[in-house]
Amino acid sequence: MKNELKNLMIVSLVLFSYSLFAQFRTEKDLLGEKQIPADAYYGVQTARALENFQVSGVKTNFYPDYVRAYAMVKLAAARANADVGRMKKDRLDAIEKACQAVIDGKYHDQFLVDLYQGGAGTSANMNANEVLANIALELSGHKKGEYKFIEPHDDLNMGQSTNDVYPTTIHVALLLHNDKLMKEVKLLSDAFHKKGDEFNKILKMGRTEGQDAVPMTLGQEFHAFGYQLDAEIEGLRKSEAYLYEENMGATAIGTGITATPGYAEKCAVHLAKITGKPMVLSPDLIAATSSMQGFVMYSSALKSLSVALSKISSDLIILAMGPRTGLFEINLPALQPGSSIMPGKVNPVMPELMNQICYKVIGNDLTVTLASSNGLLQLNAYEPVVAISIMESQALFYKTMPLFRKNCIDGITANEEVLKHYIDRSVGIVTALNPVLGYEKTTELAKEALSTNKGILELIREKKLLTEDQIKKLLDPATMTGQK
Amino acid sequence: MKNELKNLMIVSLVLFSYSLFAQFRTEKDLLGEKQIPADAYYGVQTARALENFQVSGVKTNFYPDYVRAYAMVKLAAARANADVGRMKKDRLDAIEKACQAVIDGKYHDQFLVDLYQGGAGTSANMNANEVLANIALELSGHKKGEYKFIEPHDDLNMGQSTNDVYPTTIHVALLLHNDKLMKEVKLLSDAFHKKGDEFNKILKMGRTEGQDAVPMTLGQEFHAFGYQLDAEIEGLRKSEAYLYEENMGATAIGTGITATPGYAEKCAVHLAKITGKPMVLSPDLIAATSSMQGFVMYSSALKSLSVALSKISSDLIILAMGPRTGLFEINLPALQPGSSIMPGKVNPVMPELMNQICYKVIGNDLTVTLASSNGLLQLNAYEPVVAISIMESQALFYKTMPLFRKNCIDGITANEEVLKHYIDRSVGIVTALNPVLGYEKTTELAKEALSTNKGILELIREKKLLTEDQIKKLLDPATMTGQK
Amino acid sequence: MKNELKNLMIVSLVLFSYSLFAQFRTEKDLLGEKQIPADAYYGVQTARALENFQVSGVKTNFYPDYVRAYAMVKLAAARANADVGRMKKDRLDAIEKACQAVIDGKYHDQFLVDLYQGGAGTSANMNANEVLANIALELSGHKKGEYKFIEPHDDLNMGQSTNDVYPTTIHVALLLHNDKLMKEVKLLSDAFHKKGDEFNKILKMGRTEGQDAVPMTLGQEFHAFGYQLDAEIEGLRKSEAYLYEENMGATAIGTGITATPGYAEKCAVHLAKITGKPMVLSPDLIAATSSMQGFVMYSSALKSLSVALSKISSDLIILAMGPRTGLFEINLPALQPGSSIMPGKVNPVMPELMNQICYKVIGNDLTVTLASSNGLLQLNAYEPVVAISIMESQALFYKTMPLFRKNCIDGITANEEVLKHYIDRSVGIVTALNPVLGYEKTTELAKEALSTNKGILELIREKKLLTEDQIKKLLDPATMTGQK
Amino acid sequence: MKNELKNLMIVSLVLFSYSLFAQFRTEKDLLGEKQIPADAYYGVQTARALENFQVSGVKTNFYPDYVRAYAMVKLAAARANADVGRMKKDRLDAIEKACQAVIDGKYHDQFLVDLYQGGAGTSANMNANEVLANIALELSGHKKGEYKFIEPHDDLNMGQSTNDVYPTTIHVALLLHNDKLMKEVKLLSDAFHKKGDEFNKILKMGRTEGQDAVPMTLGQEFHAFGYQLDAEIEGLRKSEAYLYEENMGATAIGTGITATPGYAEKCAVHLAKITGKPMVLSPDLIAATSSMQGFVMYSSALKSLSVALSKISSDLIILAMGPRTGLFEINLPALQPGSSIMPGKVNPVMPELMNQICYKVIGNDLTVTLASSNGLLQLNAYEPVVAISIMESQALFYKTMPLFRKNCIDGITANEEVLKHYIDRSVGIVTALNPVLGYEKTTELAKEALSTNKGILELIREKKLLTEDQIKKLLDPATMTGQK
Repeated sequence: MKNELKNLMIVSLVLFSYSLFAQFRTEKDLLGEKQIPADAYYGVQTARALENFQVSGVKTNFYPDYVRAYAMVKLAAARANADVGRMKKDRLDAIEKACQAVIDGKYHDQFLVDLYQGGAGTSANMNANEVLANIALELSGHKKGEYKFIEPHDDLNMGQSTNDVYPTTIHVALLLHNDKLMKEVKLLSDAFHKKGDEFNKILKMGRTEGQDAVPMTLGQEFHAFGYQLDAEIEGLRKSEAYLYEENMGATAIGTGITATPGYAEKCAVHLAKITGKPMVLSPDLIAATSSMQGFVMYSSALKSLSVALSKISSDLIILAMGPRTGLFEINLPALQPGSSIMPGKVNPVMPELMNQICYKVIGNDLTVTLASSNGLLQLNAYEPVVAISIMESQALFYKTMPLFRKNCIDGITANEEVLKHYIDRSVGIVTALNPVLGYEKTTELAKEALSTNKGILELIREKKLLTEDQIKKLLDPATMTGQK
Repeated sequence: MKNELKNLMIVSLVLFSYSLFAQFRTEKDLLGEKQIPADAYYGVQTARALENFQVSGVKTNFYPDYVRAYAMVKLAAARANADVGRMKKDRLDAIEKACQAVIDGKYHDQFLVDLYQGGAGTSANMNANEVLANIALELSGHKKGEYKFIEPHDDLNMGQSTNDVYPTTIHVALLLHNDKLMKEVKLLSDAFHKKGDEFNKILKMGRTEGQDAVPMTLGQEFHAFGYQLDAEIEGLRKSEAYLYEENMGATAIGTGITATPGYAEKCAVHLAKITGKPMVLSPDLIAATSSMQGFVMYSSALKSLSVALSKISSDLIILAMGPRTGLFEINLPALQPGSSIMPGKVNPVMPELMNQICYKVIGNDLTVTLASSNGLLQLNAYEPVVAISIMESQALFYKTMPLFRKNCIDGITANEEVLKHYIDRSVGIVTALNPVLGYEKTTELAKEALSTNKGILELIREKKLLTEDQIKKLLDPATMTGQK
Repeated sequence: MKNELKNLMIVSLVLFSYSLFAQFRTEKDLLGEKQIPADAYYGVQTARALENFQVSGVKTNFYPDYVRAYAMVKLAAARANADVGRMKKDRLDAIEKACQAVIDGKYHDQFLVDLYQGGAGTSANMNANEVLANIALELSGHKKGEYKFIEPHDDLNMGQSTNDVYPTTIHVALLLHNDKLMKEVKLLSDAFHKKGDEFNKILKMGRTEGQDAVPMTLGQEFHAFGYQLDAEIEGLRKSEAYLYEENMGATAIGTGITATPGYAEKCAVHLAKITGKPMVLSPDLIAATSSMQGFVMYSSALKSLSVALSKISSDLIILAMGPRTGLFEINLPALQPGSSIMPGKVNPVMPELMNQICYKVIGNDLTVTLASSNGLLQLNAYEPVVAISIMESQALFYKTMPLFRKNCIDGITANEEVLKHYIDRSVGIVTALNPVLGYEKTTELAKEALSTNKGILELIREKKLLTEDQIKKLLDPATMTGQK
Repeated sequence: MKNELKNLMIVSLVLFSYSLFAQFRTEKDLLGEKQIPADAYYGVQTARALENFQVSGVKTNFYPDYVRAYAMVKLAAARANADVGRMKKDRLDAIEKACQAVIDGKYHDQFLVDLYQGGAGTSANMNANEVLANIALELSGHKKGEYKFIEPHDDLNMGQSTNDVYPTTIHVALLLHNDKLMKEVKLLSDAFHKKGDEFNKILKMGRTEGQDAVPMTLGQEFHAFGYQLDAEIEGLRKSEAYLYEENMGATAIGTGITATPGYAEKCAVHLAKITGKPMVLSPDLIAATSSMQGFVMYSSALKSLSVALSKISSDLIILAMGPRTGLFEINLPALQPGSSIMPGKVNPVMPELMNQICYKVIGNDLTVTLASSNGLLQLNAYEPVVAISIMESQALFYKTMPLFRKNCIDGITANEEVLKHYIDRSVGIVTALNPVLGYEKTTELAKEALSTNKGILELIREKKLLTEDQIKKLLDPATMTGQK
């Protein structure tokens, strides 16, 4: 903390000193002139957006991958424009350097517009155009604002429109985030499978509709948690494919007006190379410019992940109920004192946290659905809130999962005595004795057990219906739980 | 109508006469004895369910494919049990005949339990077991109720549990419905593409954010509608794959207790053959028995279809606004008088209907999400409402789509004069003149057009900036709209 | 069943005989002529709607109160038109008789249009106009179709438009249903309170976050269930007030065109009298004609009821978990055999059913939200699906609640030994000993209890920290549970 | 900006200098000891939470009213404890000062826990307890950490539990936010009504189902927007009443264990006085501790507001469509250049922004529903995400509304010529001529107008059906639009 303060002091000292000498440069657009701080890489349109959209305080650069995605898309476009002979070599060089710098994590402090915005993302796109233009200017020996050399619009937005740049950039950003997310789900799944192995010999009673059913192992239960997550990873992987289709070259409405022939196809190739994802040009650019299918289907996979994780979290809470008046089959690690009134109480805070993330993600999926169904003719102007919602969901997940894994799953222990006690007293194991004792006999045993409050094994031993050897064999965990 | 009444009369005469001699047979279960109408194929557990669940009045047989799905699953199970040597040949023969009869559409009137039910589908499964057992009895020369020959539970539910039969049956039913649905979406898409071809030469103004943008053809717009639906068909196809995974052999909780080794694998093979769908056994039966991913992901594809169709429907309503004070670019066929107050008014009733179906389907998807996220330990007992919601959504879609297609899409006509007028007066076409007149000139033209309320072409001709030949060439639809 | 068949036979005989002589009458509208069955009370516009909207198969008359609501609204309108001198006495008399007959439950078989429809309810309104006109004709000595005496449109729709009739009728229908619903919620709440009284002396451990907390009585828990439902009844009552505001007299768009001055005010008064609900005219009829607030807010109260009932149902499932490996604090009545694999298993089918209803209602609320937010200018054409969704939710609730109450709540019993065992062994009661033993001592006790697996009382007696008298006093249920 | 930098520099200089001398103090809890920065007002439990919950980065102090709400609740509790003789005068004095300081906006930088947290809000409550205790210590001449004088738990949490403090604090915070929100909705409504007055004489065509209907004034349309918002304000006001009920004194589960008799009632009185809201004690504290009705119903009012605002925003977008190929009835102020491709294009960015906020709020309402329906027995541990979602919705609304109002609504102008042109050419005004020309004649006119593409007035004048005087009278705006 001390170091952070020191850095903060130094930075603000420098900035302050600088600001004493700061000048403004003047930029203008259709609505007139505007003073821009001389040290700002952004320009007049960003400045207008900063005034127009003071909504959430969450800016483009809240998600570094989102900023990088802009640089990737602009880089692909510039290269494609050069390929078709429209962009000059020197301008391309400068733009490539600028894009690479942003991809490398630099200048992110200039991506400042609020994620919430009207105009279908025009402000975010223009922020990127202006910043990249000025970086390119500086990196090629010019001054910020000398747009005659490199122009935000003519060069950085060449053959482009917000209506192809914005959705494509969001696609790329979501794909970058999805890599992070899938990695975290995998680590979480691994943690469950590891517990599955650890608990693989521990018998327990399975339950359906909350009622005692038949035996299984605690390991099977945890492996099943892991497997469900594996299936969700597959779901995320399949669903991200809906985001590969992009519409660069569509320009305003998909007719490609102002784009040079051949540019769109080249751009897709560059984009695939730069992002490492198999991006492809949509076969119908008119449709692609208003279609939201990619967002809707990918968001649905996040919803599905929420459904799975929420079920798993709730199961953990139920299994850990206790210590004296609940199932108490497992212990979750104690992370913080529970209640101040009730000494010794430790709460399942991590599954509770995870459940809340899941509820938020499902709410976000509804926002995506609402926004997506309300497009108007050639465009859906509500893509910003779609981007906001999906990126928030991804980030909440990939930030919470490591906490959930390290502070909860990894430290789960089994209450073996409790589990054994349940198996011993359970009526459900009677099902496994069926083949030897016959259905009628086992039914009688089940009834007697329930009415006398005795265990099945207790009764069998009392009545000497089976030898200890027989019991051992019949109740062999591997057989009874289907683990060959 | 006369014939229907006649048939009804005859049927009721026959039934009435029969009923005079009707007797009841007595059946019993764990809760005691119960009188069952002698002519009923269902048995005691169905009778209890008929009393317990008088909720919606919508029964299993509301969806014939759902009834058929039960017969398919039971047939596959019987064959698999025979394969592993557990089911006798004669019983298999009888059961095969019974299942085939139901697959052929017979006896559906005996599948009577309300779709809404507690017990995770036990009542629906037992209804199927009882009815198929009694059909099998009759078809093999026995009387209904002679369960010593074929027993609903021991034979029809052999090595099975509601917890594997019910979700598998729902999977199959949804797949059968999905075939119908995809067929209807394809026909609808074809209808849009046909209009797309018909309107392919008709120029119009594209609009983004509701504001005049650049030219396109009306055909492009309709092709894009078609393409969006094509993409949704792909979505449905990909999402149905989540339903191929089934859990027959899992029995109660996935451990396969009471199922004969080898049975599960055989059952999957039979099921694939019978249904014609590539059904496969889930690799983790514990997970499969509580996992709802298949339902969630398939329902999400229905949601995505809703998003697309709702956007298309709303676009049609907007394009048809008029006749005097709206865009009035297209005419929807008149199906019924609109308002009684306003003579001559014809409303866009079909897109309005379609939108409402979409809203219902999105609501149903939420129900699916809610039910799916609330499983408890080894089972999700809320599968019935999941089945209800998805089947309702499918049926609403495949029933409404032909109405929408035949009564609306097929009859759409273009108001070519209106469309031409818009193009002529539009400022947006200025963009296409850019390459010849230059950006500065076109900007001036745009401004003058807006302030004088004149058309761009009007101005160009007034000022003689271009020859008619040049105009013709520059405004060549193929170039301007990107149609090579 | 025998009797039903007999009746069916007779009815079909009569209808068949009649059909041999049946004739058709010809009606026409703007779209041309159409043959109408001579015995039908409906007319040409209904006939068109029957063809156009074959969607769900659920018709207006699925909800008798909805049919009655039409008659109430038409009756109020006719009286108001008479009040302002526009409707003649003899026509009023005939219309009054017709409306009263329908209110009394007659002729409902003529209200046949599918609940799903485009046209903002025009078909449903015209169905009502046509049927009521023909009933009025017959009851005043004319023949069906003799519209020169009483005309569906000029008389039954006098000074009206679908745009005021339809929403107002839905308001009335929902209010009638809400009475039924509130009555059922009250009966359910009473059932919980009755159990609350019955269980009032039975101590149990309360739990927060699933972990053992402090003592309470089982009666308190059930009273709290009852109280939550009481609060929801209040919510329903307050929310129905949003439906009192109606817009009869608004006609097409709220300007009242074609309505006689004074009519709107009179109509509200009649409607209030006829329905017994404090209906009032909206102060802004333009707003009222497109506003959906009443539907949205009332539907939200149904959602809130779902949230409460779903939580209660899930709690019952958790409390009844067992019999051997769950909390097993209470027993739910056995309604049907649970699993066929697991003898003796009885499942919580009623809470499971209730939960599913709740999930469906929450899904329906989303449908209402979606439809309501998509109005266009002076009207929201999606009111039919709003009506469908809310009426379905109401009916699912008021049909399921008596099942839930009689077959589940009324028969719940407490497992007193289990509950006592939990209290005796619980560490949480240590909190109650705080005032005498002091915080430090109780904390030590808690720790020792947890590590030795002993009960707090056991330890106290072992260590003789308190006399039996002291124990009795300190653990006096009334004090410990806050019941003075 | 220069000043901000200067301040930042000074602050960081001071903090840095201070940090050079900073020491740590040691605090401990059940889980052991922990080093706390000496200058921190928070303590050990906050420190643990800062480690456990690094999720969203949004902290308690993101919402100053939420921080103030904690101080209000703690102040009320301290006073009530003093009233019943449990809290000493000197401690009360110190706590009162501390609470007042926080209410006055001081020390907010110490409220640092992430809004997302497990443990049902325990961390947030303990953060408040620790910070207020240390402030109280300092303000009464002690050092931070000298808990023997004032203890975070024994004094600040006296007779309290997170389970009553947390929901009550959220209630208060939401109420404070709701005041801000209702104020902004009122200002927005006023802006619409002002435009309503301004446009009150401007005739236009009303539209239903997108089709030309009958005349109204543009003023009526804007007044209706205003009225709809007025109705939503009423909805917010009524719904906030569900938040007045609070459960202070319930402690852990509603039995009031550890709370002094009389305290709960006193606390409610103090809370009402301090907050200025009519807070009342819930009649059933067991129910109140797990019931989420207040949150669900208030959130529903936000959803209803979204439905209204979204409809209004979409209407504005539709009415402003153009300039050449849309309705173009109104102009929205130009805030920023629209597309770079299409010169002169200005987009409806503010209604687009508002719509997105509405979609987010509706998504948040679903999150609230999900979290609320998943309570477990005596508590709902998911209140944090409920608080997060509702507070976010409120803030998005009250931050966006002024932008929407000032940058859009206030500057809307009418295109009177366009509106007049529509009226003149419209067929719909024929309805107003009905009383004079008769229904048959007007129907003929309507048909002829539609087929010849002429205006009704044009035809009337051509055919000399009416004198200019008659025309003037019949088309008197006041009559035709119902404005007496």
